Order: sequence, then C-alpha cells, then structure tokens
Amino acid sequence: MSFIGTSLIGHSTGEKTGTPFFGVNPATGAELPEPFFAASPADIDRAAKLAKGAFYAYSRTSGTVRAAFLRAIAAELESVRAAIVVRVPLETALPEGRANGELGRTIGQLNMFAGLVETGNWVDARLDTALPDRAPVPKPDIRAMQVPIGPVAVFGASNFPLAFSVAGGDTASALAAGCPVVCIAHYAHPGVSELAGLAIIRAAKACNLPEGVFSLLQGTGQEVGVPLVSHPAIKAVGFTGSRFGGLALAKVAAARREPIPVYAEMSSVNPIVILPGALGSRSETMATGLAGSVSMGVGQFCTNPGLVLLPEGEASDAFIASFASQMDASKGGTALHQGIANAYQTSTSTKKAHASVSTVVGIESKNPAGVAPYIFRATAASLLVDESLTSETFGPSTMLVTYSSPQELVDVIEGLEGQLTGTIQYDPTDLPLNPNLLSALQSRVGRIVLNGYPTGVEVCHSMVHGGPFPATSDGRSTSVGTGAIYRFTRYVCYQDMVNDALPAELKDGNPLGIWRTIDGQLSTK
Amino acid sequence: MSFIGTSLIGHSTGEKTGTPFFGVNPATGAELPEPFFAASPADIDRAAKLAKGAFYAYSRTSGTVRAAFLRAIAAELESVRAAIVVRVPLETALPEGRANGELGRTIGQLNMFAGLVETGNWVDARLDTALPDRAPVPKPDIRAMQVPIGPVAVFGASNFPLAFSVAGGDTASALAAGCPVVCIAHYAHPGVSELAGLAIIRAAKACNLPEGVFSLLQGTGQEVGVPLVSHPAIKAVGFTGSRFGGLALAKVAAARREPIPVYAEMSSVNPIVILPGALGSRSETMATGLAGSVSMGVGQFCTNPGLVLLPEGEASDAFIASFASQMDASKGGTALHQGIANAYQTSTSTKKAHASVSTVVGIESKNPAGVAPYIFRATAASLLVDESLTSETFGPSTMLVTYSSPQELVDVIEGLEGQLTGTIQYDPTDLPLNPNLLSALQSRVGRIVLNGYPTGVEVCHSMVHGGPFPATSDGRSTSVGTGAIYRFTRYVCYQDMVNDALPAELKDGNPLGIWRTIDGQLSTK
Repeated sequence: MSFIGTSLIGHSTGEKTGTPFFGVNPATGAELPEPFFAASPADIDRAAKLAKGAFYAYSRTSGTVRAAFLRAIAAELESVRAAIVVRVPLETALPEGRANGELGRTIGQLNMFAGLVETGNWVDARLDTALPDRAPVPKPDIRAMQVPIGPVAVFGASNFPLAFSVAGGDTASALAAGCPVVCIAHYAHPGVSELAGLAIIRAAKACNLPEGVFSLLQGTGQEVGVPLVSHPAIKAVGFTGSRFGGLALAKVAAARREPIPVYAEMSSVNPIVILPGALGSRSETMATGLAGSVSMGVGQFCTNPGLVLLPEGEASDAFIASFASQMDASKGGTALHQGIANAYQTSTSTKKAHASVSTVVGIESKNPAGVAPYIFRATAASLLVDESLTSETFGPSTMLVTYSSPQELVDVIEGLEGQLTGTIQYDPTDLPLNPNLLSALQSRVGRIVLNGYPTGVEVCHSMVHGGPFPATSDGRSTSVGTGAIYRFTRYVCYQDMVNDALPAELKDGNPLGIWRTIDGQLSTK
Repeated sequence: MSFIGTSLIGHSTGEKTGTPFFGVNPATGAELPEPFFAASPADIDRAAKLAKGAFYAYSRTSGTVRAAFLRAIAAELESVRAAIVVRVPLETALPEGRANGELGRTIGQLNMFAGLVETGNWVDARLDTALPDRAPVPKPDIRAMQVPIGPVAVFGASNFPLAFSVAGGDTASALAAGCPVVCIAHYAHPGVSELAGLAIIRAAKACNLPEGVFSLLQGTGQEVGVPLVSHPAIKAVGFTGSRFGGLALAKVAAARREPIPVYAEMSSVNPIVILPGALGSRSETMATGLAGSVSMGVGQFCTNPGLVLLPEGEASDAFIASFASQMDASKGGTALHQGIANAYQTSTSTKKAHASVSTVVGIESKNPAGVAPYIFRATAASLLVDESLTSETFGPSTMLVTYSSPQELVDVIEGLEGQLTGTIQYDPTDLPLNPNLLSALQSRVGRIVLNGYPTGVEVCHSMVHGGPFPATSDGRSTSVGTGAIYRFTRYVCYQDMVNDALPAELKDGNPLGIWRTIDGQLSTK
C-alpha cells in the first residue's frame, strides 16, 4: 500500500524529518514496509495554531453544517473500506471481520452525532425572562447553553484502531460539539490512522470548513502527545489507553498555566458478582458466557471482566471447573502489539507468583505477541488485605474470588477502585436485590449490568462508558453514546444580549424549534 | 450571644480540645467573647465516616423527601433570622441590611433547589428500548440518569457568610443532588456558621434523615480542610476563596488514591469592554455605573470589575476623570477581615509601584481593616507584555486600560486568564457586534453581560457563574443557579435491570411523570 507517511496538518503535510518508524505485523513480528515520520515540534505547533485559528468560525457553525461534516466523514470512510479492512489486520492482528464491524460502528457513531447536532436539543438551552419592574432590583434577561470548549487533543487507542482512534468516538463527539481536533495516531497503526485522517480532511474540504478543523499527528504519545497537551491552544484531551499514559497526560494538563480537562479511560476490571441463586440455577450457562466475555477480542476490551466474585462452596468449585475447562488455548490469540503481550506476561507472572493466588488455568503462548488464557483464584479475605489482586491484566485473564458472606461481598466492592462496569448475576431466588449491594456497586461504576456480561458497549443515548477513577480520570462523563458530547463543552450565559448577537439556539422565537427550558419549563416555543 | 463553640458532627458535638479561637469584629479589631474550637482529627474522621454511612440511604431518597429537607432548612434559617442579622455585622462588618438580603437569597436558593428536585426533570433520564431480535447482536435495555457523586466537602466563603457558606449554594446543591455534606465554617464567621449549621441539623432530624447527612467543622481550611479533602469518604469539593487556597485543595484532591473533582472559585477580574460608540453616547452614566459596581460590597465580590478596556483618546480621558471623581473615600469601607485588608494593601502597593501603571485614585484608609478606592491606569501594550497588571485586587479597585485598535482589544482579551464574566458596553453605532470580539470574550468567560455590570448574580436556571481557570478550577460548571446541581452528580446507566430495582426516575410507566429522553425523543410517557 502507499502512504504519505507524514502528519497531516490542516490542508498540508508534516515534515519528513528524523528517523522513520514502521508498523509491525504482530502476528509475525515483521516490520511493514511503509515508513512513517513522527510530527516535528514545528508540526505540533502548526497543528495546534491552525486548530485555534479555526475555532471561532467552526464554533459558530450551525448544527446542520456540523451534521453534514460528520456524515461526509462517514461517507469518506465508507469509500476507503476496502483499504481499511486490509490494513487493520496487518497492523493490529485483528481479523478482517472485526475491522469491517468496527468500521460500521465508527460510521454509525459519526451519523449518530450528526443526528444529535442536527436536532439541536443537546445544547440544554435555558432562558429566564427579564422582569424589569422587579424590586429591589430588576431581573435581567439571561440565556444559557452548552458551547464548545476549544481545540481538543484526541489520542488514538490501540485496541480500537477505528472506533476509538482517528475518526472514532472522541473525534466525533468533539467535532459535533464544535471543537477542532488535533489527533495523535496510535503508533501501532499509523497506516489505518492515515486512511482515516485523510477521510476527515477530504470531508472538511468538501464542507468548506476552516483549515485546521482537523489535523493528524504521527508519533508516540510521549514525543508528540505531551507537547500537544502542553500547547496553550489545546483546551481538552480525550485519551484511551494505559494508566501510566493517562496519568502522565493528566499531570501535564494540570501543570499548564491554564489547566484543562483530561478524559482518560485507563483501567477497569469490571467486576461480576455472582449471587447464590444464579449459581444454583444456571452455572453452566454462566461458565460459557463468562468464557466468551473474558476471551472476546483476545481479552483486549476495557470492559473485559477481570474479577468474578462467587459465593464460597461446592457450587462455585463446580462453576470454576466448568469455566476453566472452556478456557483452553483456543481462547487466546495474538495481541494488538508486542507491548501488550509483554505486559500480559509480566502481569500474569506476578499474579501466578502471589502466595494468596492459585492458578486455575495457565497457558503460555509460543507465538509472536501471543497471549493465552490465565485464570486465577483467590479469596475475598486475601483481596481485602492486598488490593494488587484486583489490578487489571489486559488480555484473556480473570481473577475468581470467593466471598464468605453478603457483608464481605459489599466490603470487597466498596474497597475496589472505580470501574467502567459492574455486573450482577442473580436469579429470582436472590430477589429482592440487596439495596446496599446495588448502592455499593453503583458507587464504584458507571454501568450496572444485570444477568449479562460487560463486553459489548451499546452506542446509544443512555450508554454510560465511564466511571470513578481510574476507570476514567473524570468519572462524571461518558466516552460512548450521545452524552459524550458534554466532555467537550461548557455552559455559557448571555445577560441582556441583543437578539442579533445571540446564537440561534437562544434567539427570540426559537428559530431552530429546539426544546428549551424557559423559566424552568421545557418548551419548544 | 451563646454558642456551642465546637464542631457539629451529625447529631452530636465535636471535641473542645486545643486552644480556642475567636471571631474578630473587623471594624474595631476586637475579639468577640465567644470561644470556638477547631475540629480535632477525630472530629474530621467521624464527620466523614458518618457522611459515608448516610450516603446510600440519602442517595436513595426521593426528590419529595429532599425538597422537604431543603424547605425545612429554609424555614429553620428564617426562624433564627434575628440572631443571624445581629451576628453577621459583628463578624464581617457587613451591614444589617446586607445580612437580611443575603439571608433572603440563601433561603431563596434552598427553595429553588427544592423545586428543582421535586419536579425531578433535572436527572436527565435517558431510556433506550431493547431490541431482542436485532442482528448480529440483540440490543439491551439501557437506562441512564444523573446520580449523586458521594459525600461533599463544602468550604464556607468569607465574602458570603450566608449565601456561600454553611447553608449556602454549595450545600444546597449538594444536598439537592443527594450528597451528604461536611462543611468547613470560614474561620472569620464561626458564630454565623454555627447558627446556620444548627438550622440544617434541626431540619435533618425533623425530616428523619440519617445522621451524618450534614456536619459542620470549625477551624481553618489548612488545619481542617486539608485532612477532610484527603479523606477517602469525600467524593467532591466545593470551595470559594483565594487562588492560593483553591490551588492547594486541588493539589490535595489530585494526590489522593482516588482523585476527586474540586470546584474552586478562585480569581476573576471580570473585564468590561467599552466600545467607542457607547463611550460617545453615555460616558457619564457609565462612569456612575462603574463606580457603583467597583465599590459594591466594598469591592468584595467575585464579579467585581477589576479591568476596564477603553478606546484610547479624549473621550476615555474624560470618562476616567468623571469615574475617578466619584471614587472618593465614601466608596471604601471595612474589609470582611484583616487578612483581606492586608492583601489589598499589598496588591495596591505593587500596582502603584509598577513603572507602566499610573495611579488615578489612591486613598489610604486609616480605620482597622479599612480599604479605600485605588484606581489604576495603563495601556493595552503594557498589559500585553506583563500579565501581572491583570491580577485580581480584591476590594474597591480597578485597572483602566486603553486600547489602540479593535485588534489590540481582541489580543488583550485572548491573553487574559479565565474569568467569571465579561461585559461589553456598546451603542447601536457600534453594531453589528464584532463576532470575533464576542467569540474571544466567550472563550475566556462564563457569562457575557451586555450594557450592564457584572456585580449582581441572578439566581436562576440559566445563570452561569463559572469560567475557565482560574475563575474556577472546573470551567465546565456553574456554582450559582439550578445548573450547580451537576457539580455533584455523575451519569450511571443500568443495563437490563429489573424494574423493581430501578430508581423511580427510570421505571417503566414513568411513575414520577418527569421528562425523559426515550430513544432520543423527549417525552413524559
């Protein structure tokens, strides 16, 4: 395949300086032939300044214009589907079917945000009517709405080369909000990133948007991401990746003259709580379901269930035996890149060597970047004294933990770090659900799943893909679904503003026909 | 007057240990007779643990119950109005009329949040319908809403002993959201704080709420606030005060095992942009208006206009002369406490000595804790090379800055730190408003005021009292108005949850009759 190989800065390309880097086929360990060049300091500065230069004009575009842009990106991606589904497996070892499916999700997300901003209700317009005769002081006319926060730095994720990378969820939500985007391609899939980046730039040109509304920087998060996040033009950050990387960016963002919000999705073990009744009535089904969820995508999902809490006893022993028998070598595969395979090796070795942990399944892969299942077992009592047992092992691994009482179960949950999801497996005989169990789980997670598995994140209006630290660095938000737009906005209000200078969403007579809160009442008037 | 003098921890009192401290009458410098005792480490831990213990039950209370609680607090405050309006002037030098008015605002805020949670629409309920037959995978039933974040630490502000202290906006919004509150009284008004704290505790008992839903800690932010913010039970922080204090708390919150959000309102100079037309047509009116705004409350408002941008020329010289003539000694007064008077002295001395600054008015007060007007003048060119000229001087002071061109005006605005407000004074001959001026100002502020003054913050649904750093540490939020509730909430979703275990807001059939977004459409069904 043929690639430009440089960063894509507005309408032009970046510098071809420094030593090139290459994608690596994780399945073979071989470098791919096409060279890529990391963004130079001048590239980074130019991309950030172009984004700032584009911001005012882009922030004032209507929902209709932004919707057309998002749909144009979706169409441009569709037009390079063939190239993308060839390149994704080469750079990530993900199968072609997954590439096709993930591209579909990516296109779906763009169209979903197009629909959201076209309708326009999302701005949460609020109007309070003036009372010029009020005593002791007149009440002014005040109108508020969500406005874009400014240029956003988006970091591509290694485990979603499309849906959470260059044209993925963070970019879609930021562009929908009215924010220019400077994206840092994940260094493990530079070619897929270029294909997506070019699609966005073609769409931006076709829609006559200001240059700089989107730029793509090649290189690593450390060499390119840190200077970008430090740049005064950048006003928010979207990141999905390691805890180490996310914390480093949060530190950089907090140390700026103007600290900015960082939405870093970093780490989650997604506990599954199995209640006694559920274990009694459908142990086999759950063992199969859990095996599927733990190994889906070679375990490389942020919602992978890495912690299963079971009631002590024979029923759990039988469940564990059945689950373990299904976690054979077929449930492993090739990691997205060698770094993940190495981290998996380190993490599973540490747990294997832990005095309080027994290894139920432990398979070593002999393939390059290969990972195979590791299933561990421990007691809730051990976990309560050593929280490292609940640390994330990114890959097809889980920790099975037996609890001795409902209170110990609640204690374990309350002691957990923040999580993206928490699942309860229950049976009518477990009902009514213990309200404190639900409250405890809710206090630690963003999504509660009943009788299902956490993998599989529905992209919709009500999805919450977020959770208290370290699931995300900002647990008030979601990175999936239409609610994700609010990560890149803030409220602004206008006091006694002339109608001509107000945004259309707040003008007299509601020209856009959106839902607005007028003196506290929702109305389309 | 008679005071308990200790912290108020749930239903009991704190320890009387250590050296007592005393309120000080700023107008005389004399200590008030009643001793107060700072919370001990055991008091702090007990308050935080009680708040955690109360959280699950309180978070599950209905909007009706929380509304009754907020209204009961309002009624209890009203019942001690006489004592409050006597004590406020003694501890703060604010006049009785202000105490009465501020108490009215405080009561109004509590009742406003009562109305908000009683109606219930604020939770932003979102429901997506399951599609069990969807291919390739079924769509689950997902329902999301805003839920309380957990126990909140609230720091009382010195400049609003009622409306932004113990029973003020932060406490009202946190309690409305379903969060227990542990409040740190401002050390400068411990007696007023105890009166308000007791009112809340009486209301909590009358409403049969769990012990610990509210506690009041006496002492300073440093000795009591830092350990409280470090406590694992605390999940968010509301603060109004100095930049030094706010940054210190943000640092403590970020260094926790689980970092938590800090809403610190710290510093703002609230620029007023005067356009040539406005200067031509109503120079005198504006000079009087500005004098009133700069000196309101002895200049001790976070929305005090500390920076005025004027077009260079004779019209501005005349305006400045008129404004200066009105800023006589009568525009000064007694500061809230000696610390503010000292800081005012330091800050005005620094500006007075600055080579690029001329002092237009400089009056020294001879009273204890006295502050008198200081008006400075500089050029936009000087300000562009030294941003210290735009630093906040808390008190009846402002910096008048002349700009030489519309572009220089935009440059100055873009170089400003984040602000709570930005004001434009314009005349029809200045129209149409330069869209880039508006965009630039909007990028730096939370509220844009046209042809008015920033002091006077309307408490309503559309108020945005917040802005980019350092106006607040989290510029996406507001601390005034109903939107303030979202500082203490986060989104949670439920996947395939049984109806019985769902919050009422998300149950089938919409038993509360609230507005909900069902499959993307607002509905009361």
